[in-house]
Amino acid sequence: MTGALDPFASATEIARAVREGAVPAVAIAEAALERVAGRNAELNAYTTVTPARAMEEAAAIDAAVAAGRPVGPLAGVPFAVKNLFDVAGLPTRAGSRINRELAPAAADAVLVQRMNRAGAVLLGTLNMGEYAYDFTGENAHDGICRNPHDPARMSGGSSSGCGAATAAGLAPVSLGSDTNGSIRVPASLCGVFSLKPTYGRLPRAGSFPFVDSLDHLGPFARTAEDLARAYDALQGHDPRDHGCVARPPEPTLPGLTAPRPLRVGVLGGWFRENAGEEARAAQARVAEALGRDAEVGPLRLDAAEAGRAAAYLITNSESSEFHLPRLRERAAEYDPDTRDRFLAGALLPAAWVARARRVRRWWLDQALAAFARFDLLVAPATPVPAPAVGQKTLELGGRTVPLRPSLGLLAQPFSCVGLPVTCVPVFGEHRLPVGVQIVAPPWREDLCLRAAHLLEQAGVAVARPPADAAEPRTVATRA
Amino acid sequence: MTGALDPFASATEIARAVREGAVPAVAIAEAALERVAGRNAELNAYTTVTPARAMEEAAAIDAAVAAGRPVGPLAGVPFAVKNLFDVAGLPTRAGSRINRELAPAAADAVLVQRMNRAGAVLLGTLNMGEYAYDFTGENAHDGICRNPHDPARMSGGSSSGCGAATAAGLAPVSLGSDTNGSIRVPASLCGVFSLKPTYGRLPRAGSFPFVDSLDHLGPFARTAEDLARAYDALQGHDPRDHGCVARPPEPTLPGLTAPRPLRVGVLGGWFRENAGEEARAAQARVAEALGRDAEVGPLRLDAAEAGRAAAYLITNSESSEFHLPRLRERAAEYDPDTRDRFLAGALLPAAWVARARRVRRWWLDQALAAFARFDLLVAPATPVPAPAVGQKTLELGGRTVPLRPSLGLLAQPFSCVGLPVTCVPVFGEHRLPVGVQIVAPPWREDLCLRAAHLLEQAGVAVARPPADAAEPRTVATRA
Repeated sequence: MTGALDPFASATEIARAVREGAVPAVAIAEAALERVAGRNAELNAYTTVTPARAMEEAAAIDAAVAAGRPVGPLAGVPFAVKNLFDVAGLPTRAGSRINRELAPAAADAVLVQRMNRAGAVLLGTLNMGEYAYDFTGENAHDGICRNPHDPARMSGGSSSGCGAATAAGLAPVSLGSDTNGSIRVPASLCGVFSLKPTYGRLPRAGSFPFVDSLDHLGPFARTAEDLARAYDALQGHDPRDHGCVARPPEPTLPGLTAPRPLRVGVLGGWFRENAGEEARAAQARVAEALGRDAEVGPLRLDAAEAGRAAAYLITNSESSEFHLPRLRERAAEYDPDTRDRFLAGALLPAAWVARARRVRRWWLDQALAAFARFDLLVAPATPVPAPAVGQKTLELGGRTVPLRPSLGLLAQPFSCVGLPVTCVPVFGEHRLPVGVQIVAPPWREDLCLRAAHLLEQAGVAVARPPADAAEPRTVATRA
Repeated sequence: MTGALDPFASATEIARAVREGAVPAVAIAEAALERVAGRNAELNAYTTVTPARAMEEAAAIDAAVAAGRPVGPLAGVPFAVKNLFDVAGLPTRAGSRINRELAPAAADAVLVQRMNRAGAVLLGTLNMGEYAYDFTGENAHDGICRNPHDPARMSGGSSSGCGAATAAGLAPVSLGSDTNGSIRVPASLCGVFSLKPTYGRLPRAGSFPFVDSLDHLGPFARTAEDLARAYDALQGHDPRDHGCVARPPEPTLPGLTAPRPLRVGVLGGWFRENAGEEARAAQARVAEALGRDAEVGPLRLDAAEAGRAAAYLITNSESSEFHLPRLRERAAEYDPDTRDRFLAGALLPAAWVARARRVRRWWLDQALAAFARFDLLVAPATPVPAPAVGQKTLELGGRTVPLRPSLGLLAQPFSCVGLPVTCVPVFGEHRLPVGVQIVAPPWREDLCLRAAHLLEQAGVAVARPPADAAEPRTVATRA
C-alpha cells in the first residue's frame, strides 16, 4: 500500500496503511516534508515547517504500531494549521508582523492536541490573511499565498494556506478558522472540501481571536470522508472557550454513507444575484445531483443581505475593540488595508452594532424557518472562481464591486448566524474550481457531511490534484 | 378557611381554600379588588385595574371546582403584572406616555397566559419606571409609586408596582422584569420575596423589551413557597423569545423543604463597600442564619465592579438603539431623566460596548469559579432601605453619590451575567426592610428558593404586612 506515499493519498488511506504496518508513518512524514520543500517556494502555503517535531511524532506512531498498541483514526496522517493556532515553541503570528514578537506558545491549541491524540502528525503552520481580516490570501508580511491550480491566481483567505496546502498535496488535512467565510472562501478557490461547524461546536482555546462572537474553527480535506474523520477527532467541549457549547461529541463518520431522503433548498435571490456564471453552474450541478436522491426546491431568503451587513458591522466593531491598544502603538506595522478597516471600526457608533445584532436575530429566524421545509440549503461559496493575484474589482450582476470584501458575499450570511456548512469543490467543465456551500440547521454537521459525500460519490464534487504548474497558465483578469 | 380572604393570605392558602371549596374564588377576587380600590389612591401601585376580567376568571375557577374539574396550583390566586406585559385589550404602556397610543394588545403575554392556566386571576397592571430605565419608582407620567411601609418613601424600580402591590396586600403574587435589578430593588425596598431567574429561563414573548440581552422576567410574592409555586407555573420554553433556552421545566416546589448541606459565600469587597449599615446587618443576619445549616465563608469577587460597569454600557447602548426612532420623533414626551440617558447611549462608541461584553465574560468566569467552592453567594440587594421620595443623593462609603443609578449597584453585577437570584426581605430591628440577594449558578433557581425558604422558616427573612399608614411616619432624608 505504497499509495499512502502519494501526496494525494487520502487521510483514510494513509491511516489504514500505517495502522496495518504497510507503510511507516516516518516514511509518510518524510515524503510529505519533501513535497512541501519542493512546492512551497512557489505556493507560499507554509510559513513555518516543523520537521523535527513531525519526525518525532511519526516515529512515536510507528513505535505504537510495532508494539501492537492502538493508534488513532488519523494515525500517521500529516496535517498543518493556520498560523493563528498555538503550536508549542512558535509565536502565534496570526498573519501579522507584530505578533512575531510574541513569546513562543507554551502549549499547543486544544485542536492541535486533539489531532495529535488521533495520531495525526504536524508538519507546520500555514499562511493566512493578517489577523484573519482578508478574503484574498495576499499577506503583506509573509507574501502572497498562491493557488495550486494556477499560481497566478489567488488562493482565497483568510485560511489561504489551508486551501493551498490541502489542494497542492502538502497536507491531506489542515485546520483553519472562519469568521465571515475564511474556511469556505479558500476551499472554494482551491477546490477542496472544508467544514465550518456550528458556532460553539469546536473549542477555540489556544487560537488567536478575530471576532469572538463569530469565530469558528474547522478542517479542510480532499475527500468528504477525510473531512468527517478529522471533524470527529476534533469534537468535544472545552470550558476554556466561552463560546464553546457543552455538548457531547456526535461522530459523523459512521453515518456518512447511510441513505436518507434529504429535502434540499436551492438558494436564489442574494445568492444568485451575487454569483457569476461558473458559481451558478456549480450550484445547479450540485442541485441536480442531489435531486437524484432528494427533493429539491427553490428558496429565497430575503434577510440574507441584511444578515451579511450585520456580519460586517459586528466584525468591524468587535475586532477593532480587540486591536485598539495595538493600533494606538503600532499602526504603521499593520497591513495598510487591515489597519484602515480596524480604524474605521473603532469609530462605529454602538447603536449601529446593536441594530446589527437585532438584524442578525431576524435573519436567523428566517433561516431557521426555512429548515422546517428543507434539511439542507445549497448556495455558491464564492461569487467567482479564483481571481488573478492583484485583481482589485469584480463584475457582479452588471456592477463593478471591490473584490476584497465581495469574495465573502455569499459566505458571510451563514457564519453570521453560526450555521454549519460544508464547502464542496466543483470543477465542472471549467479548469478552475468553485465551491458550493451545503448549509444545515444548528448541530447538524452530519447532514452537511453526508451531502458532501453523496456529491463526491456522484462525481460532482471531487478535489482534483493540480497539474503542478508544469505549464504556466494565462490569466484573463476581470474588469 | 376564611383566612383566604385576608389580604395577606398566601397564594398557597388561597389556592387550597379555593380548591377545597372553602372559599369561592369570586369572593377572593372581590375582596382583593376592594382592597386595591381602598389603598391604590395613596400607593399608586396599579395603573389599570381589570375588575370585569378578574370576576370572569374567578367565576370560571368556581365553576370548575363545582363541577369537580381539576384546577391549577394557583386556583383563585389574584395576581397583577408590571405594565410592560401584554394584557389583551390594553395598550402595553411600559411606563411611558408614548406607548399609551399603541393599539391594545391582541393577546396576553405568554407568562400571563401561564398564570391564568395555573388558575390565577388577573387584577390589573402595575406602575413601573418609564421604559424600565429606573430604580426609584418615580414615574413622570403615572406618578410616584409609594412604599407601603412608609408612603413618604420610594418603592424602588423599575418594577415599582410589583414591590408595592405585593407588600401592601394588593396581590399575593405579581410579575415584573429585571434588566439591572428591577425585580430585586423594589423587593428590597418594599420587603417582599422575588426571583430573577437565570437569563433565558422564562420566555419574554408579549412583553415590551428594554435590553434584549439582559432582560429577565420573574415573580414577586410574600412567601418563599408562593414564589416557588408561581415560578413553577411560569416555567417552560417558548420559541418566540430568541433568548429563551430550550430546557424542560424543573419544578422547584417539591424540593423546597428538602434538607441539603449548602456552602454559602458571603460577598465582601464591592458588595460591602457599597452597602450601608442596615444592608450590611441584613447580610450578616442571613449569613448567620444559613450558617446553622450550611458552611459559610467570606468571598471577594473583584470583577464585580467591572461587571457592573459593563452592564451599564450594554444597557445604555442597546436600549438607545431600540429607542432611537422614537427619540428622533418624540423626545419631548419622554421623562427627561430617561431621555438624557437614551441620548447619551446613542453616542457611545461600539468599541466601548465590545469591551464591555468582553469584561462581562471575564466577570462571569470569576463568578463561575466561585461556584466551585460555594453553592450560593449572599449579598445585599440595595445599598440602603427605601430612601425618601425625591431624594437625589446617597452617602455611600463616605462619598456622596447620585441616588438613581446607585440603588442598583449591588444588583447589576448578577443580571449582567444572567445568574439566578432570589431577593429575601430582612426587617431585623429596623422598621424598614432591606433585601438580601441569594445568588446561585446558572439554572439552579432551586437552590435560591430553598435558601429563601430556609431563611423564612428561621424567621430571618419574612414579609411583614405594613401598618397601612395609620400614622404618618417621619422621614429622615439622607444627605
